[in-house]
Amino acid sequence: MKYVRFKIDEEVKYGIIKGEQVWLLTHSFLEDYEVTNQSYLLSEVTPLSPTLPSKAVCVGLNYADHAMEMNIPIPSTPILFMKPSSSTIGPDEAIVHPTLSKRVDYEGELAIVIKKEAYQVPLEEVGEYILGYTCANDVTARDLQKSDGQWTVAKGFDTFMPLGPIVSDEVDPTILSIKTSLNGKVVQQSNTKHLIFSAHYLVSYISSIMTLYPGDVILTGTPGGIGKMEIGDKVTVEIEGIGSLTNTLHL
Amino acid sequence: MKYVRFKIDEEVKYGIIKGEQVWLLTHSFLEDYEVTNQSYLLSEVTPLSPTLPSKAVCVGLNYADHAMEMNIPIPSTPILFMKPSSSTIGPDEAIVHPTLSKRVDYEGELAIVIKKEAYQVPLEEVGEYILGYTCANDVTARDLQKSDGQWTVAKGFDTFMPLGPIVSDEVDPTILSIKTSLNGKVVQQSNTKHLIFSAHYLVSYISSIMTLYPGDVILTGTPGGIGKMEIGDKVTVEIEGIGSLTNTLHL
Repeated sequence: MKYVRFKIDEEVKYGIIKGEQVWLLTHSFLEDYEVTNQSYLLSEVTPLSPTLPSKAVCVGLNYADHAMEMNIPIPSTPILFMKPSSSTIGPDEAIVHPTLSKRVDYEGELAIVIKKEAYQVPLEEVGEYILGYTCANDVTARDLQKSDGQWTVAKGFDTFMPLGPIVSDEVDPTILSIKTSLNGKVVQQSNTKHLIFSAHYLVSYISSIMTLYPGDVILTGTPGGIGKMEIGDKVTVEIEGIGSLTNTLHL
Repeated sequence: MKYVRFKIDEEVKYGIIKGEQVWLLTHSFLEDYEVTNQSYLLSEVTPLSPTLPSKAVCVGLNYADHAMEMNIPIPSTPILFMKPSSSTIGPDEAIVHPTLSKRVDYEGELAIVIKKEAYQVPLEEVGEYILGYTCANDVTARDLQKSDGQWTVAKGFDTFMPLGPIVSDEVDPTILSIKTSLNGKVVQQSNTKHLIFSAHYLVSYISSIMTLYPGDVILTGTPGGIGKMEIGDKVTVEIEGIGSLTNTLHL
């Protein structure tokens, strides 16, 4: 399935994409839903962030090349941090440059969307708990990340977590090409096969610490090639089989 | 007012405490409510966590004596981190010792409960955005805090954020004695006048980074005297004019 949360006529709705059509659901795809016989053209709806998570758990330094560019050793267990739900925005919404920061970076990432409550889930059962995969941008005020040992401020500003537009369960998360472009120029290019800790491992590991709820997201980490955005820059995270997520940096 | 969220006859309700009585509200104290003419004896209700926050923003090293015992310089801006909402428990609920950790510590703290959506609130207007103050325990797997630069794992386990029982707006947060006891023996004793960054300053500062929603909490930091709990230990955080929060550590 390819799930989408969208707006049409000022109402928020949930749908499943087939070809150029979005088929309306009776409920959120995070609840028990049925597919209705009403559809829209994909081109006439406005995709939103697929979820407003109760929490977003993020993984630092999960690609070896990014750990190297940050001058930090490859971790032996996942480095976890959180972004607040208040940082969530959808496709085409503005990333707002905080006045507190002098350097705002993109970080393109594969995100996992949780389908049902998950606590201490063994690795082999993880699949049942995952709704699917979407694109994410772990926007980071790089200068503030260095000044503060914790990353909450640097990564926690409003608008710093673009998500979407589509959640797909039709992809294999262990082998997806992932690419970030800045104003059309490719700046990050990798494949999720290079993840140090895989998507499935992360769900199992994080659920051994904290209960994950439906709609929660896990941002799996960014590959090498991170860099600064200037006001007006358009950043696109594109993941094979899922789609692309574009946002622009505003004052 | 002294607000309480409680359970009676298996139902969750909201009330205001006057003397030994809890007066039932028509809605949550985070919404528009009216006080009904129905009351219960305080002794017959089970207090719950006063809020299930969309986020809990916490402040590290906000008392000089705790910074000294952790061997970390006094910060010049607040060190922020987050605890997930899934870590919330109420008074008298069990703190569960994770198998991953060998040392689980108490950290008694004053917590702020947010009343209405707050973004970029000037210091002098902060009062309007605060519902009141409650007791919190920022339970920490100390051994895991040291092994991981980020504190999300060490502080993010389920049951690691006891809150409650009462939210009071009748106290002055700049001068409250705060005390933590372990099995009846006082282990932390300080006063919020020793906070490096005051409660009001923290709301203004955090709201300059991220939008705070009704029911969100800010844990203002712990004074010196932190220490390990053993299985079966009973820990009580007591704050002047607010009340006391007791929890027990279980396997």
